[in-house]
Amino acid sequence: MNSIKERTQDIREAANHLGKEVFTDNISKKTEQRLELQKVSPKLATLEEAIRKSGLKDGMTISFHHHFRGGDKVVNLVVDKLAEMGFKNLHLAASSLSDVHAPLIEHIRNGVITKISTSGLRGELAREISMGLMEEPVVFRSHGGRGSAIANGDLHIDVAFLGASSSDPLGNACGYSRSENPKSICGSLGYALPDAQYADKVVILTDDLVAYPNTPNSISERDVDFVVEVESVGDSSKIASGAIRDTKNPRDILLAQQAAKVIINSGYFNDGFSIQTGSGGASLAAVKFIRESMIEKGIKASYALGGITAHMVKLHEEGLIDRLIDVQSFDKVAAESLKNDPMHKEVSSCEYASADEPGSAVHYLDIVILSALEADVNFNVNVLVGSDGIIRGAIGGHPDTAADSALSIIVCPLLRGRIPCIVDEVTTLITPGSTVDVIVTEYGIAVNPRRPELAERLKAAGLRVVDIKELRDKALSIIGTPAQLPFGDKTVGIVMNRDGSVQDVIKNIAE
Amino acid sequence: MNSIKERTQDIREAANHLGKEVFTDNISKKTEQRLELQKVSPKLATLEEAIRKSGLKDGMTISFHHHFRGGDKVVNLVVDKLAEMGFKNLHLAASSLSDVHAPLIEHIRNGVITKISTSGLRGELAREISMGLMEEPVVFRSHGGRGSAIANGDLHIDVAFLGASSSDPLGNACGYSRSENPKSICGSLGYALPDAQYADKVVILTDDLVAYPNTPNSISERDVDFVVEVESVGDSSKIASGAIRDTKNPRDILLAQQAAKVIINSGYFNDGFSIQTGSGGASLAAVKFIRESMIEKGIKASYALGGITAHMVKLHEEGLIDRLIDVQSFDKVAAESLKNDPMHKEVSSCEYASADEPGSAVHYLDIVILSALEADVNFNVNVLVGSDGIIRGAIGGHPDTAADSALSIIVCPLLRGRIPCIVDEVTTLITPGSTVDVIVTEYGIAVNPRRPELAERLKAAGLRVVDIKELRDKALSIIGTPAQLPFGDKTVGIVMNRDGSVQDVIKNIAE
Repeated sequence: MNSIKERTQDIREAANHLGKEVFTDNISKKTEQRLELQKVSPKLATLEEAIRKSGLKDGMTISFHHHFRGGDKVVNLVVDKLAEMGFKNLHLAASSLSDVHAPLIEHIRNGVITKISTSGLRGELAREISMGLMEEPVVFRSHGGRGSAIANGDLHIDVAFLGASSSDPLGNACGYSRSENPKSICGSLGYALPDAQYADKVVILTDDLVAYPNTPNSISERDVDFVVEVESVGDSSKIASGAIRDTKNPRDILLAQQAAKVIINSGYFNDGFSIQTGSGGASLAAVKFIRESMIEKGIKASYALGGITAHMVKLHEEGLIDRLIDVQSFDKVAAESLKNDPMHKEVSSCEYASADEPGSAVHYLDIVILSALEADVNFNVNVLVGSDGIIRGAIGGHPDTAADSALSIIVCPLLRGRIPCIVDEVTTLITPGSTVDVIVTEYGIAVNPRRPELAERLKAAGLRVVDIKELRDKALSIIGTPAQLPFGDKTVGIVMNRDGSVQDVIKNIAE
Repeated sequence: MNSIKERTQDIREAANHLGKEVFTDNISKKTEQRLELQKVSPKLATLEEAIRKSGLKDGMTISFHHHFRGGDKVVNLVVDKLAEMGFKNLHLAASSLSDVHAPLIEHIRNGVITKISTSGLRGELAREISMGLMEEPVVFRSHGGRGSAIANGDLHIDVAFLGASSSDPLGNACGYSRSENPKSICGSLGYALPDAQYADKVVILTDDLVAYPNTPNSISERDVDFVVEVESVGDSSKIASGAIRDTKNPRDILLAQQAAKVIINSGYFNDGFSIQTGSGGASLAAVKFIRESMIEKGIKASYALGGITAHMVKLHEEGLIDRLIDVQSFDKVAAESLKNDPMHKEVSSCEYASADEPGSAVHYLDIVILSALEADVNFNVNVLVGSDGIIRGAIGGHPDTAADSALSIIVCPLLRGRIPCIVDEVTTLITPGSTVDVIVTEYGIAVNPRRPELAERLKAAGLRVVDIKELRDKALSIIGTPAQLPFGDKTVGIVMNRDGSVQDVIKNIAE
């Protein structure tokens, strides 16, 4: 064979044939200096450096996850820094926002943040926005809807700022740490995974920079551009705050018992069933009753989905649930389980609840128990706007799971104090009635007329099945017709359906 | 607040504002029929249905992985079916091909396959191609180079056909199964992961269709379009075949001892070091000697990379290696370990060895031991074409790991029978000499002149460091100058550098 030098012409022809360059050896590659440099990650940066290098410009979209819930420290840290650096007119696209994000009010007033997309709003920020703080309405999406919107380009993220409880200098990151004294833990990073995959630039912020390789990891170095070490990404003691609480309320326990009876007699309580429970007290309490029945009847579940709680972990560890599919760990027990148990699987919001993907877990979900601020006589549900017209909740996976489950159960008291929860029409349409099968109240169980077979099964089991209008009438008879809410003319919020269409608007409310 | 009906105008305005549609409720959504349908995966298909629905057309690119090595049954099964269905002019892009793929010869003769991209070729197929079977040269890429080419669009895959040892009907798939009597196991699906992510359509073939959810999974349902149940995807008893063998050859053991001494005295054998060993007998044997020294000196490794073997699993389980990073399981012990041990991490070929990604594992690799068919006086290495001019190997991760490791060691006998392994110029340039640090032979150790500090350290440790030309002369003195190979004028293979440029060509050879 001719020498490589003599093959040069053949190599050039081959390169032309493929439309490629001829290889040139970079002779300076292997040197001691390069080898020393190699050990330093090119991704390590201060927050300010990462922001500068990311190419972020005024008017762009930044994103965040809310896995630390009320304990999140990343949103305020980053937006404070962006304000300090003089950025304006940014679109903040968080998977959700809570009362801890009240400092955003100032950044909105100062023009740093002019658009918000989120699943929910709570506290002072929600109140101010409800009053008309922003010129541009807040866009609300469900978790599945947000995943779809990011995947299909509807929600394009320029720079994602993602908090992680551990990361190596290359960006292999997760919501827990294997260090001896980790600073934080939030468990699943499911809502951050679409951001990591689709954002133009991804900045990991971590309070535990560990040695490479930080495996198993949730976010891969493939998707990460910068790694920033910070003092704290979140207060883990607060991941169970907000919506999550263990109820001792006797009415909630009664509701939970009724919900469990609905499930057990629904026709869907069979070996291999799958279940998701929301974060309301009653729906969590229902798990305890279902557990007893599972043991008694020898029934096991194939998977529990969603926000995973200590309750679900317990059933899994007892062998009653085969797999846990976790888009968000609702407490520390769940977060630790995700870290330690390979059968406890982390999924992205797309794998969890995308309407566009036939394989997303909600499509195969049998039973979901959900809560509500209000439900109406058409089975429509509102979980976002309070009966005072002020935003005080989050869409979450509510419409996703209601739409795709075989049996969606709303657990809701008839009244909360002087506020009726079963009404003529919900203040804001979050979950369309066509996707809601059963509403459980302490005064009876309403079954969607579209599911007559379900109503028959529950009646046959001796449950008190009533017309939804009867529940509405009962509520009105106790407290009278509530006064009209003083909504104004300004649209402060837009509720997207998970399919990307506009489903409802939220108007401003007077003080 | 006005009713939703009265809000219609506001909703329409909001939709216009966002450029979206107004939500229309699909009233037929929740019915018993739909709920029954929901339980049937829309992705399940026969192979023929999957091919038809995939939109595959003549001239397109199909891809395969080679994790079953000599036991692979997917390539032949699919290409037979494509031939039967009348497809022509296809580009077959496999992560590698071996002697089991000899039936492709007929499909090439019949015009079903007219282009091939692969890491390697062996057996009768390799021989025929070397003789000039194909009009279009075979394009050879390293594993990292293939990952990069798929990720950057250089190698666009229309339809990927990926064998999996288990999959649920939605396409959550892996290279092992948790069934009681699984039919196959291959461990990591690392080379299939870029195909799954970037191919237009992805078909999973599995011999163990398991209940949803098949978690933990390696390929996510997100990336899968069709799931096809087949009798067998591969013979697991052959995953350790081909290059992998445990040596009892005294020369290999001598070479292994020398390689181990090079490592131990290189300056890179420090606590927290990382290592990859190739699949040659001597490089595998070297692990045993390194292990003894690790125990003796109290040194632990941060990770072992690459093709993972039973040897590496043993060291990991003994606590000598913190993490295993596995792009390909080289034997059943490794495959079982991947299944059971969360600290044994599956990575894609991009995460393993992409030159484009600063976070890929090879960038942080300290030490790699590799084999060679030939090395030359400029430290260039050939692992693809035999000294008879016939293709008989695979590029694998050889150039990727050599380029990015701090210390690349080639272990190679001076002669194999009457064939010299240290030559004036390699028959085919696979790994450029600029990336090769040390060549270990039974007659002495040659150190690349670019690494004088390394030569000093090895000399100081009493190792026999020689000039590479001395080794070449020794080989020639024993067997004389070999005759020129009877290469022809036709280019049968093109060797790509991992950076996407053309590095060398392979010419046809006369019988």
